[in-house]
Amino acid sequence: MSLPERLFFVDTTLREGEQFASARFTSAQRLAIAEMLDAFGVEYIELTSPAASPQSARDLATIARHGLRARILTHIRCHMTDARLAVEHGAQGANLLFATSEPLRTVSHGRSLNEILAEAQQVITYLRDHDVEVRFSCEDSFRTDLADLIRIYRAVETMGVQRIGLADTVGIATPRQVYEVVSAVRAEVTCDIEFHGHNDSGCAVANTFCAYEAGATHLDVTVLGIGERNGIASLSGMIARIASVDPNRVRRYRLDLLPKIDETVATMLGIEIPFNQCITSPTAFHHKAGMHTKAVLADPRSYEVLDPNLFGRQRTIA
Amino acid sequence: MSLPERLFFVDTTLREGEQFASARFTSAQRLAIAEMLDAFGVEYIELTSPAASPQSARDLATIARHGLRARILTHIRCHMTDARLAVEHGAQGANLLFATSEPLRTVSHGRSLNEILAEAQQVITYLRDHDVEVRFSCEDSFRTDLADLIRIYRAVETMGVQRIGLADTVGIATPRQVYEVVSAVRAEVTCDIEFHGHNDSGCAVANTFCAYEAGATHLDVTVLGIGERNGIASLSGMIARIASVDPNRVRRYRLDLLPKIDETVATMLGIEIPFNQCITSPTAFHHKAGMHTKAVLADPRSYEVLDPNLFGRQRTIA
Repeated sequence: MSLPERLFFVDTTLREGEQFASARFTSAQRLAIAEMLDAFGVEYIELTSPAASPQSARDLATIARHGLRARILTHIRCHMTDARLAVEHGAQGANLLFATSEPLRTVSHGRSLNEILAEAQQVITYLRDHDVEVRFSCEDSFRTDLADLIRIYRAVETMGVQRIGLADTVGIATPRQVYEVVSAVRAEVTCDIEFHGHNDSGCAVANTFCAYEAGATHLDVTVLGIGERNGIASLSGMIARIASVDPNRVRRYRLDLLPKIDETVATMLGIEIPFNQCITSPTAFHHKAGMHTKAVLADPRSYEVLDPNLFGRQRTIA
Repeated sequence: MSLPERLFFVDTTLREGEQFASARFTSAQRLAIAEMLDAFGVEYIELTSPAASPQSARDLATIARHGLRARILTHIRCHMTDARLAVEHGAQGANLLFATSEPLRTVSHGRSLNEILAEAQQVITYLRDHDVEVRFSCEDSFRTDLADLIRIYRAVETMGVQRIGLADTVGIATPRQVYEVVSAVRAEVTCDIEFHGHNDSGCAVANTFCAYEAGATHLDVTVLGIGERNGIASLSGMIARIASVDPNRVRRYRLDLLPKIDETVATMLGIEIPFNQCITSPTAFHHKAGMHTKAVLADPRSYEVLDPNLFGRQRTIA
């Protein structure tokens, strides 16, 4: 199977990840996480909106000016106030979102699609005038009418965004549905596509992978998969998923840093690395069944699709 | 989206789950787990082979004769010795497996497909003569040539199995590949199809769901998703996945028992329920982001695809 060439990780541990129940990162921890992710090689690091608190604004400025290779994004409401703060604090990109599904439009802002687009025009123009990379995302895309999605995405593309985003905000999308919707959108726009997938029905990694197969170029992840409720796609899960199909596709990353990144963040959160975590869980390369252990000793590829050494790990045998 | 009518859970916590690194269940714990799963309503409970140890054999006999509604299966090699032990200890079904992929055939048994089928014929005939339900599974199905798979499945169907099994033994299959392969096999046999999916690339729940959409009727799960390496599809993950598409499809199960089942097994294993677990993780229904908390108070379906009350849980708001 051949995977698309264009692949960018948008790590949102410092935004989505901070919405995880036990996440309360200090400024020093935020910088340490950004440095680790940069060393690993993620292309984008997304931070909480500078409108969230004065400390968030200061941390955005610090990290944006820290000289990392990764581009620093901030995730803001589609408001001029937030856009101005993003520019003032040095964000290189702004990830805009607007609720577009019927359940969210009713409960959250009550605006029509035309009103949404009028607000978006002003904010996108301002950000582009300040050389800020812009992504516009329809929150809760998979409960939004596909015709509405396409109408909005075509409109914001005309306004000059670099990227549109599809977000499974509530974790309801199925893998094949993701493939179909992303394919349908891919056929309608020429800009890049970002995907953000929650894990409420256990498919965050799979859905993000199906989006990538269908033409999404930018994949949202967090360390360990932390996020609102039970999280989103994990960085190690996506690396495992892609590497098991084509290891060459992820060779540009410092894969051997993955265990330390996961361990460091788990320690900061006061949680264990979940046993089901790909690559970095204590048991990910542990073989116990008699039939497996004999075969793995003869030839590891008998029961291993990923080489643990690629990730600085070792297999263990019971 | 309409899901297939036929849905059976094969819980293999007492077989696959025992291959998890820290699983060392006592006989009393095995019985307690079987009773909880039976109360929940899983249709099948799979136990370790009676050939594994004298204690495994005694526990199989105890649980098989305990009067549970769930059918008691044992997972055995395709050998007459194991088949006789299964019958002697009262198993109502036998899940046979045979390695068929090139990597496993080379390393593990070196037999040709014709030799595999000759052994299978004898074992299947013996088990059917003793009124034992039989499933025949090609281990490592997704690294097995599709033409070989179909040849074997058609042959064992003729031999009288109730069910064939597709197993992603090494966790390499992608969701769309699972859908395609199961669909192709579905077109070639009329018997039931079971699916068993590992989580090495983070897609166990998604792959099992795609198999169900494509015509698999029997879905392998374990409590929490424990199993060899980083596990297989979890019972709570599959319930969440199916319920988020169609809650009616899972109404026959005692969904309110799910949190206690996961907690009990996590305690036996000395692990936390992973934060990413669907439904039963401490944070699965915890809302933290400001935008989410306001909306959820106004209307829970804004950011919830599953009603926590259905599972005896409550939402919490930061």
